[in-house]
Amino acid sequence: MANNTFGHAFRVTTFGESHGAAVGCVIDGCPPGLTLDHAAVAAFLARRRPGQSHLVTPRNEDDAPEFLSGLDLETGKTLGTPIAVVVRNQDQRSGSYSEWWHTYRPSHADFGYDAKYGIRAWQGGGRSSARETVGRVAAGAIAEQLLLSRFPALRICAWVERVHTIDARALLDPLAVERAQVDAHPTRCPHTASAVAIETAILTAKKQGDSLGGYIRLIVQGLPPGFGEPVFDKLDALLAQAFMSLPACKGVEVGSGFSGADASGLEHNDHYAWQGSTMTTATNRSGGIQGGISNGMPLDLRLVFKPTATVLKPQPSADDAGNNVELQAKGRHDPCVLPRAVPIVEAMTALVLADCWLRQRGQVGDPWPGLAGPLHRDGR
Amino acid sequence: MANNTFGHAFRVTTFGESHGAAVGCVIDGCPPGLTLDHAAVAAFLARRRPGQSHLVTPRNEDDAPEFLSGLDLETGKTLGTPIAVVVRNQDQRSGSYSEWWHTYRPSHADFGYDAKYGIRAWQGGGRSSARETVGRVAAGAIAEQLLLSRFPALRICAWVERVHTIDARALLDPLAVERAQVDAHPTRCPHTASAVAIETAILTAKKQGDSLGGYIRLIVQGLPPGFGEPVFDKLDALLAQAFMSLPACKGVEVGSGFSGADASGLEHNDHYAWQGSTMTTATNRSGGIQGGISNGMPLDLRLVFKPTATVLKPQPSADDAGNNVELQAKGRHDPCVLPRAVPIVEAMTALVLADCWLRQRGQVGDPWPGLAGPLHRDGR
Amino acid sequence: MANNTFGHAFRVTTFGESHGAAVGCVIDGCPPGLTLDHAAVAAFLARRRPGQSHLVTPRNEDDAPEFLSGLDLETGKTLGTPIAVVVRNQDQRSGSYSEWWHTYRPSHADFGYDAKYGIRAWQGGGRSSARETVGRVAAGAIAEQLLLSRFPALRICAWVERVHTIDARALLDPLAVERAQVDAHPTRCPHTASAVAIETAILTAKKQGDSLGGYIRLIVQGLPPGFGEPVFDKLDALLAQAFMSLPACKGVEVGSGFSGADASGLEHNDHYAWQGSTMTTATNRSGGIQGGISNGMPLDLRLVFKPTATVLKPQPSADDAGNNVELQAKGRHDPCVLPRAVPIVEAMTALVLADCWLRQRGQVGDPWPGLAGPLHRDGR
Amino acid sequence: MANNTFGHAFRVTTFGESHGAAVGCVIDGCPPGLTLDHAAVAAFLARRRPGQSHLVTPRNEDDAPEFLSGLDLETGKTLGTPIAVVVRNQDQRSGSYSEWWHTYRPSHADFGYDAKYGIRAWQGGGRSSARETVGRVAAGAIAEQLLLSRFPALRICAWVERVHTIDARALLDPLAVERAQVDAHPTRCPHTASAVAIETAILTAKKQGDSLGGYIRLIVQGLPPGFGEPVFDKLDALLAQAFMSLPACKGVEVGSGFSGADASGLEHNDHYAWQGSTMTTATNRSGGIQGGISNGMPLDLRLVFKPTATVLKPQPSADDAGNNVELQAKGRHDPCVLPRAVPIVEAMTALVLADCWLRQRGQVGDPWPGLAGPLHRDGR
Repeated sequence: MANNTFGHAFRVTTFGESHGAAVGCVIDGCPPGLTLDHAAVAAFLARRRPGQSHLVTPRNEDDAPEFLSGLDLETGKTLGTPIAVVVRNQDQRSGSYSEWWHTYRPSHADFGYDAKYGIRAWQGGGRSSARETVGRVAAGAIAEQLLLSRFPALRICAWVERVHTIDARALLDPLAVERAQVDAHPTRCPHTASAVAIETAILTAKKQGDSLGGYIRLIVQGLPPGFGEPVFDKLDALLAQAFMSLPACKGVEVGSGFSGADASGLEHNDHYAWQGSTMTTATNRSGGIQGGISNGMPLDLRLVFKPTATVLKPQPSADDAGNNVELQAKGRHDPCVLPRAVPIVEAMTALVLADCWLRQRGQVGDPWPGLAGPLHRDGR
Repeated sequence: MANNTFGHAFRVTTFGESHGAAVGCVIDGCPPGLTLDHAAVAAFLARRRPGQSHLVTPRNEDDAPEFLSGLDLETGKTLGTPIAVVVRNQDQRSGSYSEWWHTYRPSHADFGYDAKYGIRAWQGGGRSSARETVGRVAAGAIAEQLLLSRFPALRICAWVERVHTIDARALLDPLAVERAQVDAHPTRCPHTASAVAIETAILTAKKQGDSLGGYIRLIVQGLPPGFGEPVFDKLDALLAQAFMSLPACKGVEVGSGFSGADASGLEHNDHYAWQGSTMTTATNRSGGIQGGISNGMPLDLRLVFKPTATVLKPQPSADDAGNNVELQAKGRHDPCVLPRAVPIVEAMTALVLADCWLRQRGQVGDPWPGLAGPLHRDGR
Repeated sequence: MANNTFGHAFRVTTFGESHGAAVGCVIDGCPPGLTLDHAAVAAFLARRRPGQSHLVTPRNEDDAPEFLSGLDLETGKTLGTPIAVVVRNQDQRSGSYSEWWHTYRPSHADFGYDAKYGIRAWQGGGRSSARETVGRVAAGAIAEQLLLSRFPALRICAWVERVHTIDARALLDPLAVERAQVDAHPTRCPHTASAVAIETAILTAKKQGDSLGGYIRLIVQGLPPGFGEPVFDKLDALLAQAFMSLPACKGVEVGSGFSGADASGLEHNDHYAWQGSTMTTATNRSGGIQGGISNGMPLDLRLVFKPTATVLKPQPSADDAGNNVELQAKGRHDPCVLPRAVPIVEAMTALVLADCWLRQRGQVGDPWPGLAGPLHRDGR
Repeated sequence: MANNTFGHAFRVTTFGESHGAAVGCVIDGCPPGLTLDHAAVAAFLARRRPGQSHLVTPRNEDDAPEFLSGLDLETGKTLGTPIAVVVRNQDQRSGSYSEWWHTYRPSHADFGYDAKYGIRAWQGGGRSSARETVGRVAAGAIAEQLLLSRFPALRICAWVERVHTIDARALLDPLAVERAQVDAHPTRCPHTASAVAIETAILTAKKQGDSLGGYIRLIVQGLPPGFGEPVFDKLDALLAQAFMSLPACKGVEVGSGFSGADASGLEHNDHYAWQGSTMTTATNRSGGIQGGISNGMPLDLRLVFKPTATVLKPQPSADDAGNNVELQAKGRHDPCVLPRAVPIVEAMTALVLADCWLRQRGQVGDPWPGLAGPLHRDGR
């Protein structure tokens, strides 16, 4: 039982192989009547586009989305029906990969796919390629527009916080970072000096046929309380699934995360305080999520992406005939996936939040108590 | 749209509030003909039972599961129909909580639930309580038995690796740790000296009305390649959702995790090598998962749990009438959730793996290529 | 991949075998804050209870529901969390069935279950027994209360329209039938003379060890337009699944149904006409559903139930060892399932409609255009 | 919460409006390694194509499917990943419909969609158009190939049994009808004299601007026992949903169906008998399904399709501004949908059966008891 669908109420199904004819998605459950800003969708896709800078893969794709359905042809509004988006692959070169059709690339998905399906995804990494995320980003761009139509103060902003050992965490006020500032540098690190150092590190690694990993920080501001479902679909659980489903992501933490163990409960707790009719907490070690439900404070998460598995030096490996061999990789790749991962993380965030909103509206209605300012105390 | 169900093919729906009549689950999709070891299920539940040691909440529950359906009354075998399991709450004392029915406990789910539903879960933390995990553990115990009936070499083993700043990571060979060794000490830390230090730290915190957090390590050995689905249901994504859906879990990492960014790709890659007809990798920085699919190497994950939010000192907080107040918590709680979280983590792991197995068997059949030793090369 | 869950937003999972310990359900997704009328739930269950008259199985069950979760213990309101309902089996006598543990009862599910699972559901018909519907009726009773809290004019009313060849169709005004009138006679046929004839026919069949089938008519009044989803989850498609999933149901038709083929399109079409701000159709051959979406006219469906498969005469059959044998059935059964099927059909209808409502509210909000009287013309 | 997806393990999501850019589907869960017969898919689509005869709509579409993903470009085998299929609309003429953009066509979905979404699906009937079924047929053609790869004796065959009052039921041996015979006449009625009469009736209706409905019969031979799931996903319940989700379908019956009420239980029961190692029943009033599970006998269902709602005479109707008006329809349409519905019914059948197979394989394995000839008696 495969499942290439994400979300329950706002659902996106992606399709397409890296070196097949096209990639894309079908978005099911988008409310009707949303006036889609096509340029904003295209701009979001352009942020993850290969070839956008000297730091990323030179694969040449213009990634222009074609909308096949779900939109009123006259007004451009969503119909409430499935929105199919197709992006043609233009620069697929599966021939480039022919030399290791029988060899498993280290730390790639090749062996796992073969063990699972008994057939190699010849089209170049198949569904494990970052190219699959085109469909996610197109859908996420629409999800973000949907969210903004209801919650205009919402701000989803991710950035490169660290690459290799260059870490800008202590140098930034996370609540002050804006998307334009992030996009201003090809590294997508909004701290200028760090960005320059990261750029140098990536270019050095690239020259050496090597690759680098790092951290992405995500902050969401303006999110009301009440997002997320108890138990299995806690907001942080859905976000963790969303991010860990991205190629190369190997860890997710919320709020204080792994460092939270250094504190005791008395030190760690976030104390509530009303500021007018808005609930706040004095600190935000919870990262905006308590018991799996948003509490109105900023969401604060950190993700780690491993260094790109494709490196251009000979490596020991094994083939599908039982031989241990040496592999010399070729092909285009990102020496560091983090700059292009930023919009993908934002898109996944928008998908999770749009889904949570519609699910909440379905069960409780809209506005729900957490949107109404002073809580309805239900007669007690 | 709530969702209290986990899994696609092996599905568990949990129900019950901490201070309601009962907690439990319905397991849907368990294969027929499995001879259930009731004692093993009860033993698994006993490992998460409150009151099991001086380190955990004194709440007194015997947590004996009642099976209402899905089993042949004569043979005890599973019928293939839903297995309903109920555990009565015996020591609920919702009265204990009456003093803060109108006050939101810091870093608890109270405010989020109120903002979401407009009704307090008076039964003591409602669905966000760790008591909800009774149903998960009962289901996970059955899932583990199911997995062992097909993959007898499978070993799921979690333990407390760190509490506060006491870290046993460097002192243990993770592949040598066994469940019996973990359960031998009430801290569930298998390194004796660390366990003793952790015990002291927890007791000290308890005496001070304080609480501690820490890390749990999970190793799964004997898992064949091919578990997990591409894209959204990658094995690590499902595990991340499973673990982040646990109360107090604030982070998950796989393999090298957050420290993976310190390495370059050339340093980080795991090199394949056939050992006979078994594929191995020289290192396991991938944590047994590549491209979201298990590769036959041990699964290796680490989780962080924050310090328990319930602390027994006065704290600033806010009530549901708009007042900022001081809260003095009472009630029973775990000064450190980690010892009892160990079997819960194992149970969630079993649920994910059982689901992945049945999904794979549905789409590809059984055995699939990754179970057949030398890969069927599909005629190429 | 089993699936014992029905619905997407208002979801009910049933469990339990006819001769196991209990039957019941878990309802997931019920909105919070609904004040549950326990007596009304019990009354609904009493309408499907065995032993309620001389026309039905004498199995003695009081079918008192126990609510294990999901309700505020103090106010009785729904919490928004899963509502688990358990009904203990009191008069199970699986011993009664021991003589044909190896023989397949004609037109029963025995052989199919054995072929599917390789294990007999010894507990008496297992999940194919009408006893499974206890959980559906409990959930349906709650769904109806939920619907009435939002749509107070809604009236779901089913009745026995025909048994064997006694057909009351032409003798009744379907829009005038009320539930009290239906329940006034143990046959649940609201036309008195027909009811008397049906009673006699059932008693005669019972005396002869024979059984009878018939039709149930369903009318839903007061349903606004806009219920149902395009394509696979059309309102009639969901209702058809719901009803065909009932034991012994062998056909469903909507509006003109099978007789609709006798008319041409010019004769068959329902012509629209505004009556004030309400849209009506001059005829209702569509049965209130067009293109899968409710149009505000009464829902009008008809279902056929086959004669009960259990008959108390010797019949040729086959056993599980490859022998063709004669079977003499024993055991308690309904000589005609229709009287007890009436509340089950109403319960399934409520489940479908509650689910459609919450789904619509999730995607479009509430009120949606069809609830707002004059349609919002979206600027055209 | 919209849902344009059908199936659990073999899942198809359709997209596209009748007068938008394209229609199509994404198939998720198809097993890997299936060598797809592209010509057979195209041939299946050609059977539902408009313009195929003088009896159907003259809309001119070549309906050539483009496969965007999921296939190995070299071998044509399925990869196990999503298969996206797109069919461009070539002859959409939404302008044709402009005159009644504000008027609701009688017995069409127009009003329901407007009431639901508050936006007219300007692209000509939107998702309620039969054009949506292109995606279903493409997916069904693949599902049939998948089924035949495992169950080569399977035969899915539907035909036009009746149009208006011309009924070929008594004139045909349903087990002898073959697909080639059905396709031999443009009416898709395999009884020649009836076919000629039906052709005349349709042409007469067409000339008069009128339309006709009728019945489709479906027989599936060679289906092993064990397909279908207990309770909500009974095989007949899934088929009923599948068929009632088709445009214009207003009723479904299985086996004896509505006429089954004429018999008593003693008359109606199907008696089991082993014929060698094959279980048979002397009669097949159950239509091959008992307790929701296939029993190895032929599936036997009947569906009714209402006369096409589009008729070319003036009709009273209403517009979206509250006026009662007269509507003179134009536009292309089928004067009788039944000939083109035949392959659609077969496609939906294949989708249901492929899904049931993979679900059963997932839970029980393959072969399951019902495939193994003599039933494994589980030690009793």
